[in-house]
Amino acid sequence: MKNFRLIIQYEGTRYAGWQRQKGKNNTIQGKIEEVLSKMAGESVEIHGAGRTDAGVHARAQVAHVHLDERFEADSILSYLNEYLPKDIRILNVKEAGARFHARLNAVGKCYEYRCLKKGCYDVFSRNFTYELTKEYDVERMKAAARFLEGKHDFAAFCSKAGKKKSTVRVIHSIEIIETEDTIIFRYKGNGFLYNMVRILTGTLLEVGEGKRTPVSMKELLENKKRENAGEKVPSIGLTMMYVLYD
Amino acid sequence: MKNFRLIIQYEGTRYAGWQRQKGKNNTIQGKIEEVLSKMAGESVEIHGAGRTDAGVHARAQVAHVHLDERFEADSILSYLNEYLPKDIRILNVKEAGARFHARLNAVGKCYEYRCLKKGCYDVFSRNFTYELTKEYDVERMKAAARFLEGKHDFAAFCSKAGKKKSTVRVIHSIEIIETEDTIIFRYKGNGFLYNMVRILTGTLLEVGEGKRTPVSMKELLENKKRENAGEKVPSIGLTMMYVLYD
Repeated sequence: MKNFRLIIQYEGTRYAGWQRQKGKNNTIQGKIEEVLSKMAGESVEIHGAGRTDAGVHARAQVAHVHLDERFEADSILSYLNEYLPKDIRILNVKEAGARFHARLNAVGKCYEYRCLKKGCYDVFSRNFTYELTKEYDVERMKAAARFLEGKHDFAAFCSKAGKKKSTVRVIHSIEIIETEDTIIFRYKGNGFLYNMVRILTGTLLEVGEGKRTPVSMKELLENKKRENAGEKVPSIGLTMMYVLYD
Repeated sequence: MKNFRLIIQYEGTRYAGWQRQKGKNNTIQGKIEEVLSKMAGESVEIHGAGRTDAGVHARAQVAHVHLDERFEADSILSYLNEYLPKDIRILNVKEAGARFHARLNAVGKCYEYRCLKKGCYDVFSRNFTYELTKEYDVERMKAAARFLEGKHDFAAFCSKAGKKKSTVRVIHSIEIIETEDTIIFRYKGNGFLYNMVRILTGTLLEVGEGKRTPVSMKELLENKKRENAGEKVPSIGLTMMYVLYD
């Protein structure tokens, strides 16, 4: 068998997320497996670096797949892009080492959450941008972000945190980029918990709105209670940008 | 009556073009007039700066509309954006002089035609980018563009050129911008004939492909025969960028 690494781009609008689910034929993983299985003539399973939620997008999701020796990277790429729907594209297929695992070998990820400022419009990005309806103080949000960077227990920023698995993660940086029309939150870290980026963004927006102080982020991290953090923002604005490997 | 100037953005994918047509309820003009007529309680007509074709997009189309004295720019803007579909947005409404006419007063326009290079993908711009399936020599296309700039009779680059109306236009500049993934053709001129930008782009691509020489543009302009020019490219890649007034 050969092991292939796939780089995948998708607009998540029409999909129930990355992960294949019984009885749902509109997941990204499901769509790609369907085409690969047709190509291989047998059931094929792919393994993604991260499970993006319903409606979340990706610029460069990574996955790996084991296929018979007779397959070549170039022909897999052409075959997939011929049969996949237009909102899912394979950017690259490359043969990887036998032990390469897209999720287990990932050492870092980057996510962006894209907002459109109140009163601004952009029809061309409407499917991947969250439209704000209030005004936000960006400097205040930047100050709050400084408290969230680093190694912390992010239990307060996780939906359905279990007791067994660690909720400690490292956020290398949170950049908040303001343009004339947009506010973009860019998160880089070693990994992110379930809904973590959306809850972080929702909490930062509450700081920008004046509902919370920047320094209150410290208490949230210490108290570890989900109910004390902000509301999660809608999936529409979230894009997985890339995955890092050693 | 007051005269209002509207700046309008749309993704043309779902529409049969700008111009209202009998029996078709999917034109941009038709959609905006429908909402404005509902607001005004009577039939309202708007006048656009240019009639974009089916599938063509706009970043900043301009139109004017005469409305009763009781209406204010801000409330027209909010009303339109509340009731218009998400792929049409009004960016700005401003009271204009009584004699302002969006089409007759326009002194220049800018259009962009956006291509994705062979083998490149971008799901996020898939609805407004034309996917190339061959390789093109950009320097060769730039050389050809130099012959097209200036004041010429563009009859060869016009679908259905009549004998009565002048087909002389001034192209101020044709910029061809190449990035890693895209080739963008940017046209600025005092006005453009029916299908002119799409035929110019199709002809330039044939130069880039090696089917025509750059200098052959001179003959096309002199001979004025539509059948000698290149094929028009699909509407998907074309966007009206802005309209200039004195």
